[in-house]
Order: sequence, then C-alpha cells, then structure tokens
Amino acid sequence: MADTDLVVPAGWEPGKGTSASMSKQFTFDRYGITRKFLDHVAELSEQDGYHPNISFGTTYVNITIDARDGEQLGEGDKAFALEVDRLADATTG
Amino acid sequence: MADTDLVVPAGWEPGKGTSASMSKQFTFDRYGITRKFLDHVAELSEQDGYHPNISFGTTYVNITIDARDGEQLGEGDKAFALEVDRLADATTG
Repeated sequence: MADTDLVVPAGWEPGKGTSASMSKQFTFDRYGITRKFLDHVAELSEQDGYHPNISFGTTYVNITIDARDGEQLGEGDKAFALEVDRLADATTG
Repeated sequence: MADTDLVVPAGWEPGKGTSASMSKQFTFDRYGITRKFLDHVAELSEQDGYHPNISFGTTYVNITIDARDGEQLGEGDKAFALEVDRLADATTG
C-alpha cells in the first residue's frame, strides 16, 4: 500500500479527508493556451484510458485525479499527475 | 432589466442566491460523445467570444453561464444556453 505523501507530486493537493484523490489548479494567460492544454490532457486521457475530473474557465483549469483503484492513490495516478504537469509546462501560446 | 424567469431556459438552474448565473448538467453514454460535445461548446464559445465555466468527467458535463454584464442574466446569456442545449441534442456517438 502506497503512502499518500509518496504519490502526490509537489503542487498537487490531496483530497480533504481522504487519500483517494488529488487536485491542482493551472492558470494560463489567455483562452487559446487554456484550450491547447485541455486538448493535450484529453489526448493523454485517451492514451491512458483514464479521465480525470476537469473544471475550467477562460484562463484556469482545475484537475482532480481520483485513485484508479477507488481507494488510494498509487503509482499510476502519480505518473498521470506528473505527465499533466509536463503538459502544462510545455503548453505555451 | 430582464426577469430571471424569462432568461433561464427550462432545465437550467439559476445560481443560488443570485440571478447572475445559471447551470445545467448534461450526461452522455461514453467519453467519446462527451468530448464531441465539449468540442462543440468550445467552438460556440470561440464564435461567441464568451466562455462559460465547465466541469466534466468521463460521461458528464456541467456548464455554468455567468451573466455577461456581471449583474443579471440577459438575452445574450439565454441565447447561449439555448444553443448549448441544441448542441447537446445534436451530439451523438
């Protein structure tokens, strides 16, 4: 069983009262960049077969990753989070 | 000044304690349809220059439309909501 601290990357916030999810907010300068990021996350989701919960507006995206096993975040969830971080870094106007 | 009842189409829920927003949840059978609907809403947003707040997961999309004037929903917001409804009806697998 994984320790939550080990599988929640820096900048991600564990779900309150549970170790079964983690969230992070990403902000962008304008909608065009926000949409590009959303498209990249959608591609990642399709490759990975995992779909996080996503909230977004013009210049922000909140991503919540639920534990794939329904109980506790694990290495697969961490890898997904890190890949989302990488996509955010790589997404520019 | 428009009456909120007149500008919130059937199925949309006015924001609690305010007449400055309205929300609706759409559900779909699978992610492919959800994504197609999201893409259509994104196109509508770009045409219209208005970006609602959107939350989604594999098979659901929640859309919140804030009053464009920041104070009260109006005809422009209603037209956007009706167009979103039309896109949902038109989006199939």
